[in-house]
Amino acid sequence: MRRKVAIVGYTGYSGAELVRILQHHSQVEVVLLDHREDGGQGAALRKPKDLQHLPCDPESLRRAGVELVFLATPPAVSMELAPGMLQAGARVVDLSGAFRLGTAENYSAWYREPHTQPKLLAEAVYGLPEFCRERIPGARLVANPGCYPTAANLAIRPLLEAGVVDRAAGIVCDAKSGVSGAGRKPSLTTGFCEVTENFSAYSILKHRHVPEVLQVSSLAEREFSFTAQLLPVDRGILETIYFRTTGGAGAEDLLRIYEARYADEPFLRLYNPGRMPDLRAVARTNFCDIGATVDSSTGRAVVVSAIDNLVKGAAGQAIQNMNLMLGLAETEGLL
Amino acid sequence: MRRKVAIVGYTGYSGAELVRILQHHSQVEVVLLDHREDGGQGAALRKPKDLQHLPCDPESLRRAGVELVFLATPPAVSMELAPGMLQAGARVVDLSGAFRLGTAENYSAWYREPHTQPKLLAEAVYGLPEFCRERIPGARLVANPGCYPTAANLAIRPLLEAGVVDRAAGIVCDAKSGVSGAGRKPSLTTGFCEVTENFSAYSILKHRHVPEVLQVSSLAEREFSFTAQLLPVDRGILETIYFRTTGGAGAEDLLRIYEARYADEPFLRLYNPGRMPDLRAVARTNFCDIGATVDSSTGRAVVVSAIDNLVKGAAGQAIQNMNLMLGLAETEGLL
Amino acid sequence: MRRKVAIVGYTGYSGAELVRILQHHSQVEVVLLDHREDGGQGAALRKPKDLQHLPCDPESLRRAGVELVFLATPPAVSMELAPGMLQAGARVVDLSGAFRLGTAENYSAWYREPHTQPKLLAEAVYGLPEFCRERIPGARLVANPGCYPTAANLAIRPLLEAGVVDRAAGIVCDAKSGVSGAGRKPSLTTGFCEVTENFSAYSILKHRHVPEVLQVSSLAEREFSFTAQLLPVDRGILETIYFRTTGGAGAEDLLRIYEARYADEPFLRLYNPGRMPDLRAVARTNFCDIGATVDSSTGRAVVVSAIDNLVKGAAGQAIQNMNLMLGLAETEGLL
Amino acid sequence: MRRKVAIVGYTGYSGAELVRILQHHSQVEVVLLDHREDGGQGAALRKPKDLQHLPCDPESLRRAGVELVFLATPPAVSMELAPGMLQAGARVVDLSGAFRLGTAENYSAWYREPHTQPKLLAEAVYGLPEFCRERIPGARLVANPGCYPTAANLAIRPLLEAGVVDRAAGIVCDAKSGVSGAGRKPSLTTGFCEVTENFSAYSILKHRHVPEVLQVSSLAEREFSFTAQLLPVDRGILETIYFRTTGGAGAEDLLRIYEARYADEPFLRLYNPGRMPDLRAVARTNFCDIGATVDSSTGRAVVVSAIDNLVKGAAGQAIQNMNLMLGLAETEGLL
Repeated sequence: MRRKVAIVGYTGYSGAELVRILQHHSQVEVVLLDHREDGGQGAALRKPKDLQHLPCDPESLRRAGVELVFLATPPAVSMELAPGMLQAGARVVDLSGAFRLGTAENYSAWYREPHTQPKLLAEAVYGLPEFCRERIPGARLVANPGCYPTAANLAIRPLLEAGVVDRAAGIVCDAKSGVSGAGRKPSLTTGFCEVTENFSAYSILKHRHVPEVLQVSSLAEREFSFTAQLLPVDRGILETIYFRTTGGAGAEDLLRIYEARYADEPFLRLYNPGRMPDLRAVARTNFCDIGATVDSSTGRAVVVSAIDNLVKGAAGQAIQNMNLMLGLAETEGLL
Repeated sequence: MRRKVAIVGYTGYSGAELVRILQHHSQVEVVLLDHREDGGQGAALRKPKDLQHLPCDPESLRRAGVELVFLATPPAVSMELAPGMLQAGARVVDLSGAFRLGTAENYSAWYREPHTQPKLLAEAVYGLPEFCRERIPGARLVANPGCYPTAANLAIRPLLEAGVVDRAAGIVCDAKSGVSGAGRKPSLTTGFCEVTENFSAYSILKHRHVPEVLQVSSLAEREFSFTAQLLPVDRGILETIYFRTTGGAGAEDLLRIYEARYADEPFLRLYNPGRMPDLRAVARTNFCDIGATVDSSTGRAVVVSAIDNLVKGAAGQAIQNMNLMLGLAETEGLL
Repeated sequence: MRRKVAIVGYTGYSGAELVRILQHHSQVEVVLLDHREDGGQGAALRKPKDLQHLPCDPESLRRAGVELVFLATPPAVSMELAPGMLQAGARVVDLSGAFRLGTAENYSAWYREPHTQPKLLAEAVYGLPEFCRERIPGARLVANPGCYPTAANLAIRPLLEAGVVDRAAGIVCDAKSGVSGAGRKPSLTTGFCEVTENFSAYSILKHRHVPEVLQVSSLAEREFSFTAQLLPVDRGILETIYFRTTGGAGAEDLLRIYEARYADEPFLRLYNPGRMPDLRAVARTNFCDIGATVDSSTGRAVVVSAIDNLVKGAAGQAIQNMNLMLGLAETEGLL
Repeated sequence: MRRKVAIVGYTGYSGAELVRILQHHSQVEVVLLDHREDGGQGAALRKPKDLQHLPCDPESLRRAGVELVFLATPPAVSMELAPGMLQAGARVVDLSGAFRLGTAENYSAWYREPHTQPKLLAEAVYGLPEFCRERIPGARLVANPGCYPTAANLAIRPLLEAGVVDRAAGIVCDAKSGVSGAGRKPSLTTGFCEVTENFSAYSILKHRHVPEVLQVSSLAEREFSFTAQLLPVDRGILETIYFRTTGGAGAEDLLRIYEARYADEPFLRLYNPGRMPDLRAVARTNFCDIGATVDSSTGRAVVVSAIDNLVKGAAGQAIQNMNLMLGLAETEGLL
């Protein structure tokens, strides 16, 4: 029998992606929780697919036997909903930034609002399986990583751990994202005419995803320069990462470090020297693709890391976490 | 000395296009009327270009000596503002649909709201210079044509007048527009992620621009099928028009009819048989490009008409009307 | 044990789509036939996925036990390769136009080259399962339908059979396609800078897909006006179809005709009145989505039909045909 | 009387942009030199605009009284054509990379082909007016700068001259360009389906535009990391530039340095702190827009520089050089 999982925020881009991926998952059944509806135009299709809808309250979850809830909601909504769902016995994968940072102080410094659930924050497990896999199966509340930090940490942390990065010279992460990363709420900046044939930077050095990279890769703020930029594409993140290698490490050395670290990882793919990932290679997949180039005479290195912001950067990684939490095969529904 | 003209709605796409084109106009000076501002983020540029701003009221217009006002506003706002401006002695070119239709009844049938200025409606001159040029110079109030009807009427009316269209079989106008035609107000349907890699039909057979075609080309509703569709492009309208020719007229015959009718028109361009206009050819120009193909054995004809919806379909044509109203060269600023 | 199927032309867009879809098919194993390679840059990934490659000759097919070959090649190549593959005992699904038309004369009239395999042409079965399902399981050679005719015939034929279309007034099919329909071979007209922010018509009234519609829907050329147009999107076809209804048939009547005809079809989806399909709804699916609007006072009707040109318009339908030919579930790998 | 200037390569994107801009120039008349034609489909328009065509040889130039020739051709063609044109008495603005670098050795190291005109290379003047204005009026041969180096040098050199950049820590220039930068020749990598919804890096650390930045801004290769990347847009370059400031310089300090250096420059625009240029702001203009952000506690700085690659990055700057060479107002035709 399929196990029941529920989605809050199923009309947003991440929520809709959860629905899309889970319909090919062999072990779970999806329930939609009607918390904030998007107007309810009525069905376009004459025979719309039947997915169960429930009111978004603890009692309904309990009665329906929902084991796990995905919160594809803004941080404030996640902080409001999570406690009740946990009390109703459901486990929670939160896709917002509400439970990702180590302390309430850090949260309020970057998100510019107080954290209303500091106890849950202390309990939450950061859901980047490649680095936190052992704690995820037992977690009640998993904080699904941000899209930018997922691509950044997977590229940076193995090299820092291997000691081949000149930290003093600093790391530059020039990040570009598709527009779906900004969510589905209408706004002038995400309107078609503003985005098409355009490209722009925002939140320079101050993006709220920065502290997730500092935290996971153990970097100081002065060691890490990050710029977020809006690409005229629907989905995908590509980060171009610059640093200097130590000890004369070349591209092959970097790739061997990744290979060793990620030997058993199902969702990491490495590129041969001279080749680099692009967005199409990862679109609609849960892969993180990584390539590296080094100018060996000077040690200048460039690493490119690419993911689909809605899959490995949101819904796909959330399902990867769900699989781990429910004791299912980690790749189920994702390959 | 330059003559003063003012713009209401200069932050919208049509209004901004008026500003863009008029800055290359040698005879007029632009004043911006602050009616509805878009938040006022403050200037991005350290030395922003100096354009005079005025409050949007009749007294300010009078004192500043504004001769003509462009209303790049929704119909309801145009109906509200036009009377005061005319009383202040300014002439008006209205880019909305408020004053285009012949009667208040027709307006309320298609726009689903009452017309609050029926007297002005009776006075207004329809500003399609190719067919109404003689009445424009003397007009106080010009109703600038809709974007879709401009492309449609310029393609259809000469052929109807020449009697080469089988009216009984009907005319199909399959119209495609860039997203700027929907205006700058944020909405889900014009969000980048909804539009990119997509294409969709809307207002099928019921678009409020239909009566302008019926009126200008003297067609009955049953003779004219019109579908509006949203292209994933910023600007441009292309209409593919289907009908049957009478009397064995072929492509060359249609082109000769256009050539005769438009011999002295500066903004009409015709294509050789076998070639057809596309959006790039008219982008950022005030041209309407027309091509024709006929299968002579059956009389099935296809005419393609293309304009830039923000130029010949809005701001450019409004300036063409302004030139006529102010006694300037009709093409000034537009070639 | 998985059954072996092979692909010629796997580097083209349709061929690559066959590979993409078949990797989720539970019953077959894919072999790639190296007929025309695209330069062979070497693998980008350090651990590229292992797919078996074979030379493209009958003997290799026989030895490998290939049961069925997909030809994702131009018509001339398909005519050259098909005979040898059939003699090697493989069955063939040809995605080109080589074997779709009833006679060699019709082929040479529309494709402007002689047909070199008239006997195979006579034997070939047209692979539109919704209308030719019974003949497909026994076929040695299936001609996979063109992308445009698939969307057109699925929308038009049920209405013609039901007698609700005024044939004398004619049917207009205004078709728009994504650029992948033009194939992967570099050309100026499919270059990014030529296509982005553009829209253009081509092959007006003369597209080589027209005779497939005439043949399948039993229309005379004079009854059917067809224009192909290039959308600035990667994939998808949307056709806006205009005609007049007979006997006062309204939108609900048309939808009921479709519902009756397609009651058991897994890949047809119908839209409620007032709603219409768009490209996103069918992207990367094997669905054909259909909606209808009728102005009941005049009988003017508009039907919109949408497919993904690379799936239901090419690779997906080819796999649907393969499933039927191999006695597998028709939807396997496609839902 | 208008002075005659000629264009070789008028069918390419830069050449066509020269034609487009020069038709609004009040002082020159354009002649097209037919060197390599693009197939010659015949005119689409029934009344094509009359531009004089001439064979591309010295004698024709002399007879027609052409004063100046734009070479919008690949480097090898420019090296082949320039000598004859100079001998015919015409001055030359070359838009290729043929004459930009200081020595033939440097040229062959980065372009991987020998330089066949070293004497002309020695004579050529680098045409970046903001830094080389005094030598341009007297030059016979001007090497029009590359698109990437134009945006980079205008942003970097004033700061280096002012001594506020920590050279030891290095400068990172993450550059993104529209597809027109790759030219109009069909290729797989610039095909619509490969570019749309994609983003990719190329020529990492090895782009042939790098030495122009090193040369103009006096940087050593190890001080400058440059990555070129392909945006899914037609035109525009945006460069995100990272470095560390010295002496505690903040954003306002950087902006004041730019303001002082560019006080009299007509084509440089600066952004207020907190605002950054984007592609739309510079599209179809000859402006270079610059903004700056600094985290003052750590000295990490980000500068964004944006141009239109076909205007300030090619045709516009070439016309700016022409204006200087012919003694015309530098901004003629460009504002």
